[in-house]
Amino acid sequence: MKKHNFSAGPSILPQEVFEKASKALLDFDNTGLSIIEISHRSKEFVAVYDNAVALVKELLNVPETHEVLFLQGGASTQFLMTAMNLMKVEGGKSAYINTGAWSNKALKEAKNFGEVIEIASSKDTNHNYIPKGFDIPNDVDYVHFTSNNTIFGTQFKEFPQTDAPLVADMSSDIFSKSIDVSKFGIIYAGAQKNLGPAGAAVVIINKDILGKTGRTIPSMLDYQIHIKGEG
Amino acid sequence: MKKHNFSAGPSILPQEVFEKASKALLDFDNTGLSIIEISHRSKEFVAVYDNAVALVKELLNVPETHEVLFLQGGASTQFLMTAMNLMKVEGGKSAYINTGAWSNKALKEAKNFGEVIEIASSKDTNHNYIPKGFDIPNDVDYVHFTSNNTIFGTQFKEFPQTDAPLVADMSSDIFSKSIDVSKFGIIYAGAQKNLGPAGAAVVIINKDILGKTGRTIPSMLDYQIHIKGEG
Repeated sequence: MKKHNFSAGPSILPQEVFEKASKALLDFDNTGLSIIEISHRSKEFVAVYDNAVALVKELLNVPETHEVLFLQGGASTQFLMTAMNLMKVEGGKSAYINTGAWSNKALKEAKNFGEVIEIASSKDTNHNYIPKGFDIPNDVDYVHFTSNNTIFGTQFKEFPQTDAPLVADMSSDIFSKSIDVSKFGIIYAGAQKNLGPAGAAVVIINKDILGKTGRTIPSMLDYQIHIKGEG
Repeated sequence: MKKHNFSAGPSILPQEVFEKASKALLDFDNTGLSIIEISHRSKEFVAVYDNAVALVKELLNVPETHEVLFLQGGASTQFLMTAMNLMKVEGGKSAYINTGAWSNKALKEAKNFGEVIEIASSKDTNHNYIPKGFDIPNDVDYVHFTSNNTIFGTQFKEFPQTDAPLVADMSSDIFSKSIDVSKFGIIYAGAQKNLGPAGAAVVIINKDILGKTGRTIPSMLDYQIHIKGEG
């Protein structure tokens, strides 16, 4: 009997997704091979990836300025990749809005790469509100916030405004409403809340903000290398 | 019709593996749920992970000194993690044996973290042999080699001997013969050659060699955090 998944994550997925995935493990798209024994560089698999990217672009109306990537390691790896790819080596500085457990983890990881300013926090009342009326700097390498906080039941109704690249962890509300992607430097979302199984993340990046840190970035952590398709 | 997979990678897997995985996507172990909609922290999924770890320990006779991890990002992510977790911040120095395309990539990634000495190379004749008779230093943070080079058809029959931690990329010959794991600081292998689908890596680590770099390591790249089960 099929049970109903009430979990906040891994998210529920349509039954037809489970059925199509199950079939692909035995015989992918009538190739006579399992999807896990064909090369991730084969035209058949590349078509799956490209289609997933195209669907994200369509659903979120992603502008030409932005690239869409599917990367491994969930949102947790994006905590470090965003900081590593955006914070300058010399005098690097970023601003974080702390609205809960995940914001706090993101902020902690960023400290590995430069100065982190907590520009607002709702910690005083156990994160039961979204801070308002605080100054949002323009002179930082980027401003980071978590758009929705499942544990605390809070959500940004309006997004922070800044001239610095705006970075959002949208793991638990991506695809739940229309957003203006052009306002963001990077949007990332761990797949398991709103998209699919645990482990992957979708990352939407404005290419223009990359390559400005003066930092040598290991290949697998470098958005520019993933965008070139060499990752 | 089931076709035969002759590829060097993704490796062939037994038909019963495809069938069991296919069934688990619809109904995992009679839970009434798909394996991709149960939490990776649930006891059902943890049992799958723990069983995979136990099987690696059994097959390679892994001693108590060593931990087994399954990590994302394939061998490519291990190129940077090995260097980041072993090379000292102050005066870090590592030695690499360059026997082909993958050795060269590993070596290149290590340069992000400190001095890399190429102690031997077969590049002079397009990597058609395994170098012999070269000095293997003891005063480096670690010595790295690639045990088998699929592209060039060469394989180490005897492993390098050093007092420094020995690190081996065994992606394309792990599980093909018995090895003495106790001689190694780290063995890693991207799954898709000899173990399973693309994307994951198995990593076998002597815990005693970790935590000695003086470097702050982002959580998702820190072997010690993954060993604690917090990754």
